[in-house]
Amino acid sequence: MSQSSTFYPTSLTLQTSTFPSKRSRQRGLTVFATALSPSQSSSVFDHKDTEPSRPKRVMIIGGDGYCGWATALHLSKQNYEVAIVDNLVRRLFDHQLGLDSLTPISSIHNRVRRWKSLTGKTIELYIGDICDFEFLSETFKSFEPDSVVHFGEQRSAPYSMIDRSRAVFTQHNNVIGTLNVLFAIKEYREDCHLVKLGTMGEYGTPNIDIEEGYITINHNGRTDTLPYPKQGSSFYHLSKVHDSNNIAFTCKAWGIRATDLNQGVVYGVTTDETEMHEDLCNRFDYDGVFGTALNRFCVQAAVGHPLTVYGKGGQTRGYLDIRDTVQCVELAIANPAQPGEFRVFNQFTEQFSVNELASLVTKVGKKLGLDVKTISVPNPRVEAEEHYYNAKHTKLVELGLKPHLLSDSLLDSVLNNAIRFKDRVDTKQIMPSVSWKKIGAKPKTVSAYPNN
Amino acid sequence: MSQSSTFYPTSLTLQTSTFPSKRSRQRGLTVFATALSPSQSSSVFDHKDTEPSRPKRVMIIGGDGYCGWATALHLSKQNYEVAIVDNLVRRLFDHQLGLDSLTPISSIHNRVRRWKSLTGKTIELYIGDICDFEFLSETFKSFEPDSVVHFGEQRSAPYSMIDRSRAVFTQHNNVIGTLNVLFAIKEYREDCHLVKLGTMGEYGTPNIDIEEGYITINHNGRTDTLPYPKQGSSFYHLSKVHDSNNIAFTCKAWGIRATDLNQGVVYGVTTDETEMHEDLCNRFDYDGVFGTALNRFCVQAAVGHPLTVYGKGGQTRGYLDIRDTVQCVELAIANPAQPGEFRVFNQFTEQFSVNELASLVTKVGKKLGLDVKTISVPNPRVEAEEHYYNAKHTKLVELGLKPHLLSDSLLDSVLNNAIRFKDRVDTKQIMPSVSWKKIGAKPKTVSAYPNN
Repeated sequence: MSQSSTFYPTSLTLQTSTFPSKRSRQRGLTVFATALSPSQSSSVFDHKDTEPSRPKRVMIIGGDGYCGWATALHLSKQNYEVAIVDNLVRRLFDHQLGLDSLTPISSIHNRVRRWKSLTGKTIELYIGDICDFEFLSETFKSFEPDSVVHFGEQRSAPYSMIDRSRAVFTQHNNVIGTLNVLFAIKEYREDCHLVKLGTMGEYGTPNIDIEEGYITINHNGRTDTLPYPKQGSSFYHLSKVHDSNNIAFTCKAWGIRATDLNQGVVYGVTTDETEMHEDLCNRFDYDGVFGTALNRFCVQAAVGHPLTVYGKGGQTRGYLDIRDTVQCVELAIANPAQPGEFRVFNQFTEQFSVNELASLVTKVGKKLGLDVKTISVPNPRVEAEEHYYNAKHTKLVELGLKPHLLSDSLLDSVLNNAIRFKDRVDTKQIMPSVSWKKIGAKPKTVSAYPNN
Repeated sequence: MSQSSTFYPTSLTLQTSTFPSKRSRQRGLTVFATALSPSQSSSVFDHKDTEPSRPKRVMIIGGDGYCGWATALHLSKQNYEVAIVDNLVRRLFDHQLGLDSLTPISSIHNRVRRWKSLTGKTIELYIGDICDFEFLSETFKSFEPDSVVHFGEQRSAPYSMIDRSRAVFTQHNNVIGTLNVLFAIKEYREDCHLVKLGTMGEYGTPNIDIEEGYITINHNGRTDTLPYPKQGSSFYHLSKVHDSNNIAFTCKAWGIRATDLNQGVVYGVTTDETEMHEDLCNRFDYDGVFGTALNRFCVQAAVGHPLTVYGKGGQTRGYLDIRDTVQCVELAIANPAQPGEFRVFNQFTEQFSVNELASLVTKVGKKLGLDVKTISVPNPRVEAEEHYYNAKHTKLVELGLKPHLLSDSLLDSVLNNAIRFKDRVDTKQIMPSVSWKKIGAKPKTVSAYPNN
């Protein structure tokens, strides 16, 4: 098991862990911006139930990342008390692989200081690794969360397919981290609502409609409603499948309340809050490892690189604007799962094929005077390139989600953002560098990337 | 991630690793006892294809355990070339928890030496941890297996529910160990057939028939055959679900050939080979952590302890005789999966409820003059105690399995074996000591067990 620690120096996290004392917290007399029923705003295990207006406390694991940072700011703005728990390993991955965000991003310390100076709101910070249970325990005892939003996983499919060590790291980090969160909730905050980021990729591309977490099956004259069959297509996607299975069990065995957000591909860069100051700017990945289809296409269009469609381009997935990510998480927190309930929401707003996205970017790029070309590159993944895809996504809409659908104006703004920072683009990072079939047991080092 | 290494000192494995040189192997001019087609007895990646009568080489990971040892002897007897890979951690668990096999068992070194002296057959031995990829790589390069039978996992549901550390250990050890085996096959023996021990417990107790690995679902006018939905009911069972998902992916992405044997509860102690000498005797667990229902009932009857039925006793599962375990594994090896095929067999021969087993043991015990009583104890697990259960198990029968069905004479022999060793029984270990609901984050030490 020593193999799995290669990419994450745990000793470092322990040295830099900071635990704000209860005295230092800024609580204030804030009220909820979101309408909550009394039962939703209290915690039966918490002596502070006697303070009826106590703001709901949300721990955001992975709060320094792309979705996590936008969510932390949004919830803080909405007067939740927010703590970020993060080991900052996503920034280490960039160093190790020679990658960088298109947008310049401040340190997490500068980010939360700037937020405080602009809004007067404190975001507490716990720097450390949730795979270290001693650290995680202290965060729970210190912050006493009512909800935990868990973004804190290695989130790139290509990263998990670089080599054996990264595959093992991804499954260890994600599965054990989530197990630790479940044990921390059971041990310290039994009524705390876990909001866990899953992925639509857990379902794969079955030839039948994709439901939200469960499917009713009639078989040989009998009927049952069972977990929807999963077919993860990378060690990363599989780690999320494992998480879902583990969480479902603890809801049943321990009465954990959990919401699994099977998120689609997120696009966009700005939210109302990240736009307030350059120190609050979110990261934006365009490289072959961490960049996802639509964001990557916008950068390619901005720098005159052909849009790289993998294979036939018929791969269809669910997509959503990052402004809807933060909205969905808030809806899940404001309407928590019941004790013992394992609730699954498919978190996306529209379906597109890769070819459709390439056409959209080409069309909007032309309006901006860009000459956008598209090429097909050999698909580095193992996946169906033409397939049926029809995934349900009604549960978040029923809770009140008002989607920001993909429009010319949104694409225009993402493209203009890419143009603004195009001098920061490293075109060597654009092509896919990780092959699903060629992954080997030997460690791959960064020097192999640019010419791979 | 340092948390997960508490129970397994990896440094020890490296110090004791032994790699037999190719020169020291005893190959002989043995032929297969099992009928094999020419394509089944050769390996396309192996230069030794030019030796048509080369015995098939089988690596048995976990070959010192209950099922693994019986399988190793059986396959060696059938003229397979056998290597055992084991870190012996199962013996360490006994020391740490204050448990012991009912039957006295020899050291693995004495076991294989005795086997050699009795039969002239060599079983190669690699002592080490498959979570250590450097070690595992050496075993593959040294032994060059045609088949890998993977029993090498923490296999007790209660063990995985003792405390957080054991839960984490179980999932880390099982999931990462299996990932390493998959990478070793891809890197060193691409045509090697993986025979992986899963468990019927992966399916849980759905209200519809359980199929063998896959189910065809008609939904909203469309049809697909998908992985059968899984509902693991302990961190152990879940670790096997995770393994199955990981293996299925590598079959698709890399062309691995794999058979997942979803085994039922194994009973019995002797096989033709283990009976040959007391040094070959197999282990027999009766305690609350590692003992399974029927074996435990036989020991309870032998020592005059009431049979401990958990809850209502309607829990129904698939069971099989250990002589059928070794037969099933041989059938899987002799009829390998195709490249890219993820094949699932449900490996059991009969279904029983716990109450039915208690009745059978009571009946046979009376014939032997034993006064057998049954008590219901509070169920330490979270599981349905009355439920529908109908699991298919035809694929191994189609390959030629001739089941040893549970009979009075078999029960008689298991009971007599228990009576023979009844002075070795520690009655404090019989009651369930691990609660699914009470599991906590804090480490549990052995002193807590007897009075728990």
